Amino acid sequence: MESQEKDHVVGIDIGGQTIKLGVVDARGEVLAQKVIKTSDDPSPEVVVSEIAEAVKTLITESDMKGRIRGVGVGAPNGNYYTGTIAFAPNLSWASHGSVEFSKMLSKALGGIPVSLTNDANAAAVGEMTYGVAKGMKHFIMITLGTGVGSGIVINGEVLYGSDGFAGELGHTCAVRHNGRMCGCGKTGCLEAYASAIGVARTAREWLEMSDAPSSLRNVPEITSKDVYEAASQGDELAKKVFEFTGRILGEKLADFIEFSAPEAIVLFGGLARAKEFLYEPTLKAMNENVLPLWKNKVKILFSQLKESDAAILGASALAWEL
Amino acid sequence: MESQEKDHVVGIDIGGQTIKLGVVDARGEVLAQKVIKTSDDPSPEVVVSEIAEAVKTLITESDMKGRIRGVGVGAPNGNYYTGTIAFAPNLSWASHGSVEFSKMLSKALGGIPVSLTNDANAAAVGEMTYGVAKGMKHFIMITLGTGVGSGIVINGEVLYGSDGFAGELGHTCAVRHNGRMCGCGKTGCLEAYASAIGVARTAREWLEMSDAPSSLRNVPEITSKDVYEAASQGDELAKKVFEFTGRILGEKLADFIEFSAPEAIVLFGGLARAKEFLYEPTLKAMNENVLPLWKNKVKILFSQLKESDAAILGASALAWEL
Repeated sequence: MESQEKDHVVGIDIGGQTIKLGVVDARGEVLAQKVIKTSDDPSPEVVVSEIAEAVKTLITESDMKGRIRGVGVGAPNGNYYTGTIAFAPNLSWASHGSVEFSKMLSKALGGIPVSLTNDANAAAVGEMTYGVAKGMKHFIMITLGTGVGSGIVINGEVLYGSDGFAGELGHTCAVRHNGRMCGCGKTGCLEAYASAIGVARTAREWLEMSDAPSSLRNVPEITSKDVYEAASQGDELAKKVFEFTGRILGEKLADFIEFSAPEAIVLFGGLARAKEFLYEPTLKAMNENVLPLWKNKVKILFSQLKESDAAILGASALAWEL
Repeated sequence: MESQEKDHVVGIDIGGQTIKLGVVDARGEVLAQKVIKTSDDPSPEVVVSEIAEAVKTLITESDMKGRIRGVGVGAPNGNYYTGTIAFAPNLSWASHGSVEFSKMLSKALGGIPVSLTNDANAAAVGEMTYGVAKGMKHFIMITLGTGVGSGIVINGEVLYGSDGFAGELGHTCAVRHNGRMCGCGKTGCLEAYASAIGVARTAREWLEMSDAPSSLRNVPEITSKDVYEAASQGDELAKKVFEFTGRILGEKLADFIEFSAPEAIVLFGGLARAKEFLYEPTLKAMNENVLPLWKNKVKILFSQLKESDAAILGASALAWEL
């Protein structure tokens, strides 16, 4: 069995709630997958061994023993250079320090090589390998989820910068004065506005500040999904929340274009599902705020990858480089 | 003579007022140089032939005939990919369209290869080859002159992006609401505040808005040099102008760090001479606005290259790659 070609990889997406694992072939087919709950155990050793067990089970069940070339991992605050996950607020076992995740997981898997990056960079690699950015050398991936992440691709490669942490566009400043407090400790970050949490917060603030009628007034704990559903049913206030969100996002996209002159911006993640409400205001604000030379030239694309596969695909694509 | 080694290059820096030319050896010594007035002739053909004549004279006078490997040019809106200078507002002969400068100059020089980029990118290459960024793989050059330019270095290479125009950081948004009109047609650009023109404008606005005493009240047409001299003599208002300028610059530097995670920011240009007044407020604002992981980690450096040589050196460094 050991002599078989190592023509498959494993992708692992580590999130605050769940960990998704999948076996992927060279054409980007997810042949088998598995979801486990993200452990709240505070010990990295325990968590790594849980993940390793899940990987081994998946490999055995899919009859891929000896055929796995490597494992790619996307994780919050994952560092490509060092293979560590450091100070990840949503992961109990990595919130207070730096965990040598790649090394530990590789050891627990009997030496299968492991490559690690942050989740947004993994998404960018997946989009470039299998998605709408296929063939592009210069694009910026923005993940609009609970937070706002980014993966920047330059000359066909993810930008890691001098320390492996480049591409924290969710924490560039969107609102300079009296900006909202962000989870990172700064104020006015893009993430505080253009994330799922930001959208819900905008809706709640506006409901409080105005008397405008809205079906959202009947919702006890408003989430971005509620705002999306209200907008879909024609709720004016909900639609304006997305307009506002798109404007803030588009203004910052203009800045990003002036930095790296990408062919396209690719939007991905839960909030990107509100394409019908986000696209126009984002594009408009982007084009209004960018230098004339880029006006109406840079595309805004929405990821077409199936959400459940995309995270696994992105992470797995890393493993091909091992 | 033609059999001699081609071990020298020519650097040309094209500015709105003057064109600087120099013959440079492999160690970065400017062996001979020349300054000519930037032509206000509207014909690119006339201007290119004037520049070619100056280059030929310089080569002959410095006894370098047959020993020039290539010519590097830094010019406003110069495009590395296409070798064109396009819509450069300060150049009469290139303000209304696109000029195939590299091709035309190479032809006029009997086939010596010509490489072109914008002036800030050329400065970045010069700094990386001969200056304070020697050995650095990731840094951002900010040129604080009449305008604000930038050259972004990633993995040891200038970032050109999908179209050759990446790195227009002077036109990212520094002041979102009621921002100043910028020369580019947008409002609130960094350039409208952190340039020589921006500094003079801040001083004029503050003198008008307040009754604060200042020696600048006696100056008829205030320039950034006047503000610098007043600050040097202890003028409080002038010092505060630089504090304000540094704060705006530092706030944007934080955004740039979150994009590309550089080792350092290198400041260059006329305004960077006001280091004693700019450094502290810029560094403070940068560290206050950047994610904790980069706080107090990214250096702000000031170019040490002799200003008259730097532009020529930067442009010439391009020619070594030819």
